[in-house]
Amino acid sequence: MECNKLFEQIENCIDQKRFREAKELLSDMEPIDIAEGLERDLSPARLVFYFRLLPKDLAVEVFELLDIEEQERFLQHATDDEVKEMIEEMSDDDRTELFDELPATTVKRLLQKLSPEERKLANTLLGYPQDSAGRIMTPEYIDLKAHMTAEAALVRIRQKARSKETIYTCCVTDEGRHLLGMVELEDLILADPQTEVLDIMDGGPVSVPTTADQEEAAQLISRYDLHTLPVVDRENRLVGIITFDDILDVVEEEATEDFERMAGIEPVEEDYLDAGLLTVARKRFIWLIICIVAEALTSTVLKHYSPIVQRVVSLTFFVPLLIGTGGNAGTQAATLMIRGMTVGEVQWRDLGRIILRETTTGLLLGSALGLLGVARAWMIGTGTAVAWTVAAAVTLIVLLGNLAGTLLPLLARAVRLDPAIMSGPLITTVVDVCGLIVYFELAGVFIGLN
Amino acid sequence: MECNKLFEQIENCIDQKRFREAKELLSDMEPIDIAEGLERDLSPARLVFYFRLLPKDLAVEVFELLDIEEQERFLQHATDDEVKEMIEEMSDDDRTELFDELPATTVKRLLQKLSPEERKLANTLLGYPQDSAGRIMTPEYIDLKAHMTAEAALVRIRQKARSKETIYTCCVTDEGRHLLGMVELEDLILADPQTEVLDIMDGGPVSVPTTADQEEAAQLISRYDLHTLPVVDRENRLVGIITFDDILDVVEEEATEDFERMAGIEPVEEDYLDAGLLTVARKRFIWLIICIVAEALTSTVLKHYSPIVQRVVSLTFFVPLLIGTGGNAGTQAATLMIRGMTVGEVQWRDLGRIILRETTTGLLLGSALGLLGVARAWMIGTGTAVAWTVAAAVTLIVLLGNLAGTLLPLLARAVRLDPAIMSGPLITTVVDVCGLIVYFELAGVFIGLN
Repeated sequence: MECNKLFEQIENCIDQKRFREAKELLSDMEPIDIAEGLERDLSPARLVFYFRLLPKDLAVEVFELLDIEEQERFLQHATDDEVKEMIEEMSDDDRTELFDELPATTVKRLLQKLSPEERKLANTLLGYPQDSAGRIMTPEYIDLKAHMTAEAALVRIRQKARSKETIYTCCVTDEGRHLLGMVELEDLILADPQTEVLDIMDGGPVSVPTTADQEEAAQLISRYDLHTLPVVDRENRLVGIITFDDILDVVEEEATEDFERMAGIEPVEEDYLDAGLLTVARKRFIWLIICIVAEALTSTVLKHYSPIVQRVVSLTFFVPLLIGTGGNAGTQAATLMIRGMTVGEVQWRDLGRIILRETTTGLLLGSALGLLGVARAWMIGTGTAVAWTVAAAVTLIVLLGNLAGTLLPLLARAVRLDPAIMSGPLITTVVDVCGLIVYFELAGVFIGLN
Repeated sequence: MECNKLFEQIENCIDQKRFREAKELLSDMEPIDIAEGLERDLSPARLVFYFRLLPKDLAVEVFELLDIEEQERFLQHATDDEVKEMIEEMSDDDRTELFDELPATTVKRLLQKLSPEERKLANTLLGYPQDSAGRIMTPEYIDLKAHMTAEAALVRIRQKARSKETIYTCCVTDEGRHLLGMVELEDLILADPQTEVLDIMDGGPVSVPTTADQEEAAQLISRYDLHTLPVVDRENRLVGIITFDDILDVVEEEATEDFERMAGIEPVEEDYLDAGLLTVARKRFIWLIICIVAEALTSTVLKHYSPIVQRVVSLTFFVPLLIGTGGNAGTQAATLMIRGMTVGEVQWRDLGRIILRETTTGLLLGSALGLLGVARAWMIGTGTAVAWTVAAAVTLIVLLGNLAGTLLPLLARAVRLDPAIMSGPLITTVVDVCGLIVYFELAGVFIGLN
């Protein structure tokens, strides 16, 4: 809100050619607030003009935070020199992210503008797999040697600081660039100036290979409360670092992916409103099709039991209630299980305990809900036999839902799939088909029509 | 795996009284790995003994990372002096978290053991609301004055470093402890030693009040890529800081809460396997009850339409398929919408666009699935009238599910509830009831039985 007003004021200044004032107002703002302000459908000329008003460092920071659409518009409408300067000055990790999204021909053209050194780097980073640690790292780390004194290390840090992602955690490498340890700036400052880095550093530090999934990097940073995670190649040579601020984005991205999978949607890359309507429809369609094809089995089941249904029509009254409740219990159990696996609370060795636990919970919840079912059947006046059928069916179907919700994600993991694909929709479908069979078999027993 | 082996080795050393070797092995491990090793049902005496083997600083770090159960066991079985030292040395934020979980009488007894200064602090922190910024902050920040030189600031930082949570971002306050700005250690190091802090600091920094929700603090840290977020009281006086490593836990906690809510489970505080069976059952029961009571309406609907059903029994064959598919579409739409709102992509001003978008998607998906429905009906041999009824019903019910999934979370937000309470189970239930009415009304039109 406040930012919106500020931007109106700045727009006024620009319209009235009071550029110095506009400049001052902009320099006091946070980069992300400026970036969001620039995402309000400005004309391309105005967008580029804003960047001319910003001090150089701030301009680069703001550009890094822009949406891809705005970044593209800037690159199309700025002068050649401006484009060159911008992409040369960007952080390596942000540049990789930008190049990832741009059309290949544009990337090729932009790579030509880079200095040979930066071009080589950009090409290397683009060579790592999508969503890998190599893809999100930056090679802008400070490296120290083990036999430097703390004093010499501080001198080196002062010299190198400007062009580096962070100076708070430095990497210690040998002559062959192999990672030996990590050292905290805090420890360097507090140490006796003549101490060797070797004696202060954390040897054998946690690191991640370039090919590891970004989620693994996020988990390591979170588990060990790291500020900086070193990334190494197959020979344990240091190639880059990932810092904590990149990880918050990864965590959010991965959570969104899990939410989507669990609702039976293939992960959508873009933001909700930026994603194409057809893209989203397609990502939803796949699971809807799988489920409707599986659900088609319920018609076969119902047709099979139609002789009972024709004689006791009131049996059908409870079909949605039964399968709905079973599906709900299944969704709940699956969510608890999948989330437990994702955050690493649930392990294979707990399997026996989990099954016992979910069976008990299922029977407990099932019988309590069964009582409600029988009450409902009596209310509607179906007679005792149907009422008892409903009660027994609710109990068993809730148990069924619970076990399906618990075991299917475990099964997925056993065959090395993401447990989250055992989504609510899929589990609901399984419970629907099995639940109906249970219900009508029970009806056969209680009503004696089979 | 590797840690497990290491622990076996350490256990062996202890059993054979080779304590020096055990000590050395332990000192080389990461605190979190030791903490997890100690969570393997050791005897209380052995647990306490491990802490005696650890160097003091490491012991405190490991203790902070232990589960509450193990922390309690240590506090019960360690000597009075050991307990006193441990809780005195703990970080303030970790101590608050521990005291939060302990029984009130234990907390009272422990507070008596603290030095008067720490006791006052602990009491203040415990006074802030649950899950608020005040509750997770630590007062262990470094404060500087605006007119100090960079050189003097660095001297002060060196003096104070040992007892502080971080030295990388320092707070600048006036005589009345009002927050004036934040300054990065990097900028202090790189500045001319005679520059005043005032000229280097970031004035008017982002801060959060003590009473703000911890989720808000997490969002600010993520949005502004902060290392350290200052926490202020109502008069803008600095009272503490929150650092990025606390935030990863908050983000994970909040995501788990959303997952649970969206599956119709009241948020469970504990880990999956630590939570009591009855607690989890209770948190699931509430929504199962709400849904089964609402689902009971489906029996009324079905009873109302039973004359049609009795004449055309094959109509019932498609009930689970129809409402299942509608529920799936609803769950998908709700997940996209709720997640979009949580990460801040969806705003009120987009309302018109969203409704248009979801109507189109609903019709698109619905008509595609409707074709499958009609195919299925023909396969099962129901005759043309029923087949067309099913096709039309699938289309409309998917549209209905889509709109319910989109609009109910928006409605929840409009009345200031967490959109995530519009969970899959709840939306499925709404779609079930409305979907059946749509289906049988369509049947009346197509088959002409009304």
